[in-house]
Amino acid sequence: MQTPSSLSALREWLRAQNLDGMIVPRADAFQSEYCAPHDDQLAWLTGFDGSAGHALILQDRALMFVDGRYQVQVREQVDLDAFEILHLHNDPLAPWLRENLRPGARIAFEAMLMTPAQYDALRASQCTLVPLNDSPFDDIWHDRPPAPVGAIREMPYEYNGENSADKRQRIAALLDAHNTDYLAITQPDNIAWLLNVRGSDIPTSPVPNSFALLGRDGRVEWFVNADKTRSLSPALLASLTLSSEGDFLSRSQHLSAGKRVMMDADTAPVALRFAVEKSGEIVWNADPITLMKALKNPVELAGYRQSHQYDGAAWVNFLAWLAREVPRREAAGNPLTELEAQEQQLAFRTQQPGFIEPSFATISASASNAAMCHYHSSESTNKAITHRDFYLNDSGGQYHNGTTDATRTLAYGPLSAQCRLHYTAVLKGFLSMMSLQFPSGTQGHQIDAFARRPLWELGLDFDHGTGHGVGHQLLIHENPHRIAKKVNPWPLVAGNIMTIEPGYYLADAYGIRIENQVEVVESLPGFCKFASLTLIPIDLSQVELHLLSEQEKQWLDDYHQQVREVLMPLVESEAQQWLFAATAPI
Amino acid sequence: MQTPSSLSALREWLRAQNLDGMIVPRADAFQSEYCAPHDDQLAWLTGFDGSAGHALILQDRALMFVDGRYQVQVREQVDLDAFEILHLHNDPLAPWLRENLRPGARIAFEAMLMTPAQYDALRASQCTLVPLNDSPFDDIWHDRPPAPVGAIREMPYEYNGENSADKRQRIAALLDAHNTDYLAITQPDNIAWLLNVRGSDIPTSPVPNSFALLGRDGRVEWFVNADKTRSLSPALLASLTLSSEGDFLSRSQHLSAGKRVMMDADTAPVALRFAVEKSGEIVWNADPITLMKALKNPVELAGYRQSHQYDGAAWVNFLAWLAREVPRREAAGNPLTELEAQEQQLAFRTQQPGFIEPSFATISASASNAAMCHYHSSESTNKAITHRDFYLNDSGGQYHNGTTDATRTLAYGPLSAQCRLHYTAVLKGFLSMMSLQFPSGTQGHQIDAFARRPLWELGLDFDHGTGHGVGHQLLIHENPHRIAKKVNPWPLVAGNIMTIEPGYYLADAYGIRIENQVEVVESLPGFCKFASLTLIPIDLSQVELHLLSEQEKQWLDDYHQQVREVLMPLVESEAQQWLFAATAPI
Repeated sequence: MQTPSSLSALREWLRAQNLDGMIVPRADAFQSEYCAPHDDQLAWLTGFDGSAGHALILQDRALMFVDGRYQVQVREQVDLDAFEILHLHNDPLAPWLRENLRPGARIAFEAMLMTPAQYDALRASQCTLVPLNDSPFDDIWHDRPPAPVGAIREMPYEYNGENSADKRQRIAALLDAHNTDYLAITQPDNIAWLLNVRGSDIPTSPVPNSFALLGRDGRVEWFVNADKTRSLSPALLASLTLSSEGDFLSRSQHLSAGKRVMMDADTAPVALRFAVEKSGEIVWNADPITLMKALKNPVELAGYRQSHQYDGAAWVNFLAWLAREVPRREAAGNPLTELEAQEQQLAFRTQQPGFIEPSFATISASASNAAMCHYHSSESTNKAITHRDFYLNDSGGQYHNGTTDATRTLAYGPLSAQCRLHYTAVLKGFLSMMSLQFPSGTQGHQIDAFARRPLWELGLDFDHGTGHGVGHQLLIHENPHRIAKKVNPWPLVAGNIMTIEPGYYLADAYGIRIENQVEVVESLPGFCKFASLTLIPIDLSQVELHLLSEQEKQWLDDYHQQVREVLMPLVESEAQQWLFAATAPI
Repeated sequence: MQTPSSLSALREWLRAQNLDGMIVPRADAFQSEYCAPHDDQLAWLTGFDGSAGHALILQDRALMFVDGRYQVQVREQVDLDAFEILHLHNDPLAPWLRENLRPGARIAFEAMLMTPAQYDALRASQCTLVPLNDSPFDDIWHDRPPAPVGAIREMPYEYNGENSADKRQRIAALLDAHNTDYLAITQPDNIAWLLNVRGSDIPTSPVPNSFALLGRDGRVEWFVNADKTRSLSPALLASLTLSSEGDFLSRSQHLSAGKRVMMDADTAPVALRFAVEKSGEIVWNADPITLMKALKNPVELAGYRQSHQYDGAAWVNFLAWLAREVPRREAAGNPLTELEAQEQQLAFRTQQPGFIEPSFATISASASNAAMCHYHSSESTNKAITHRDFYLNDSGGQYHNGTTDATRTLAYGPLSAQCRLHYTAVLKGFLSMMSLQFPSGTQGHQIDAFARRPLWELGLDFDHGTGHGVGHQLLIHENPHRIAKKVNPWPLVAGNIMTIEPGYYLADAYGIRIENQVEVVESLPGFCKFASLTLIPIDLSQVELHLLSEQEKQWLDDYHQQVREVLMPLVESEAQQWLFAATAPI
């Protein structure tokens, strides 16, 4: 077998640098969930294009470390003659290096792509860790796409509800209280929030890839490619110091001499640590913007609500169209496909006021395709949507004043008793969360099981979280809040935005998920509830109604009445009859 | 005001030793929940007899640190002219010392009464921490009670189900796998389990205060006062090396030279760390016995079940007696009191086969007394039990083959609508837990909220955990499992023994708690349920039946049928009619 040429090229480069190996992560300098093609060095090197993992390249061996989700995919994508496959969590890198390499072996890594926490874990390897300031992939990846230079636009006050100057002062006061001179902001969504700007480097993720330093006087130095900022107003540009992104480390090193700099061990590049610790003191702390940003202000909340009305109208137009087209196309012997549905759905969204782009890659999955939680349709996997199987659609939109994310699972004919039972259990878990009242400050892991209990009663469960935060015209998965089995220490309070999305997945058969985006609202002094932002009818055709309590039926009736009242004036005339039927009381 | 003489005596002693102050914890060398009078130095010094807290005694100031439970009690018990009161968690000791004393101030502590984890936290104080090997209270507390010398008895195989030799080999294998030479066992309940013995140093806590070292060859050296072991069999004594408790530190230091010793940072005395680290290596780890002990074997489980039948019979005799006596005595103008009820309950328990003693101090609380979760009756607080108020009884027994713990809240006449609503909410939380099926390995904090949800729906909550482990003829609060809001990392699996005890407390009015002891049992492959050990009718007189679901009513009917069938042959003849009525189907 021939060694892949990318792997040979990297090995040659390592030999020339007198290095024994290199760690290549699936990461960019911002630890983004979705990377630009420029940053897909792991995919170029190995063929693996999953969203997490890393490779260890030695002269005589090459290893891929990926988590449980990707054990099948990685074996389909990488050359198994060239790569050994290990489990990201069961085979951590540091012990592997310690046990398999001689102490002191020189292992390189790009210091912009690794976090301080990851670096600390690697120190147990007993290797000599060699940070690289420049990427070898600039040399060996000849057709490497350029780094993105997506234009940055301003978000007006009518959408964001708080001036950047006020945000800066709030953080400056906090730095002062911590006796800290600078906050290093290395998460682009936090920069977007702070400066009231949105970027376009990566589809669906409207953040400006860049860095910033905020001083205890509230001044901001923004390290960003000047090609991205050409359309920004003189007023915004005059309110801060613009510097080249490439100057971030040297400026940080210069400014931090004798000063205290706050940075986040889990997301900052370790290169920043190396720069600051030369003559400054590091204050390790989660970026305080992350928590401020999670508490949406009234203008942001109003924007979420409005964008969900428009998105709900797009959904109803789409669902009414599906209800017509699925049987018609099936009867014509030319059934509708996942990709066709996805395309039509985008067309309906594009008609809505304020729609910019999808908020993530749509999951349009029929039958067994939906059993894979992270499925995306392609020509080779594209299944028909028919009366015989569930069709799952998980999609959302970026609107000028909000971000949406919802899932519906639909049926176009009676399904099996087992399908109905499982659908009813998922719905009951969803309803349990939607009707929950909980003490303000409750943490996600304390309430996650309400979404699972109806499945647990059947001896079933689902292997993902129950809900995640959603940014305001920002990232679809926004930190820090989560509702999941895993401990999440951040208290849920009024003003947080979450999803509620229980599911059930039967391999090779079907997948079910019902997801609403919600706002945490105060219901009584000291207590909160989830209020639906999502306004989309829930398919009741496969529900075993006798398994629902009166309260559960009432919740559905109330919800459907709200959906009908809000959306009826917003949907196409040919969708109104469908909406009327889909929101009929039980 | 006069300074309390105990405080003056300690200050004089400190001056003579050239010490600036001393930390006096509410603790013994085993970090026991319940201490012997000998170890109540904090109560002697300050007057405060709560179960947690510590004092800091300086020459010119004296401070008491207690948690939220004890903020009222401490102010009633200590001399507020002599002591300042601080909050144990909000005012941690180390920062207080750092901010209020000069760096290097010499602060003493008894090294047997502090854990390594507590000591590490104190190092941030910037004081010179001076460990004391001998207790100053031996000098200044002239009528200090002697340390207890409770006789130790053997627990026969028919009750414990696993020979000590087999237990020792299981742990030795585990030490070998960790390449560790010794396990330091500093928790008396773990020693009791390991050696199949029970002690009598402290009422209700049948553990032998002592220490042990277990080698990787399975040999045990037991450091115990020889006066306690006189009734043990030659066979048991021949299976181990007996040493004086006072030799524990010196032997540990001697044996650990060049060896690896496992100890628990959260429960061992820091004096042991000082002894071992002189020339040995410490392996910090929770004592593995704690987890082994939590997985009860079939003989232990059978013993729990049998002792609960006897305890259930004692409860029914008591409840039937109460049902007769409360109205009779109230009509006679001489109502029954909490203390009388408690005394009669003990008499019923004492009649039962295998009963040894109560398993904790009974809570016999009428009306507003029950609003205090940790109330114990005294002549000065003793309230009447009447038709006008709830009566709460939380009690249990130590039996030769098990330990019981249950709570019932009772009424002898119709109470207010609010009482009924709150009682029904507590009952619904209890039923939600009792009918829950959950994946094996689920952690306590993941299911705690099921007990609270019916209260949350009313905007209410309770401020204690939902359940704790219970030892097998051992401690009433057994580690490591808990079901509570607080994160507890230990997975619940079949064979664990827990309590389920939601409540609701309205200050100055009433308290409600319903508690069953349960066994975690496998219900489906990979899933578990709680099976009731407790067999006591649940008072339904104050339940709003229309708020119960059909499933909830069915659970109660099934439970009461089981209670009736098992207990009818075991109760006094005059209690049978009451039992029949109390277990009638809804």
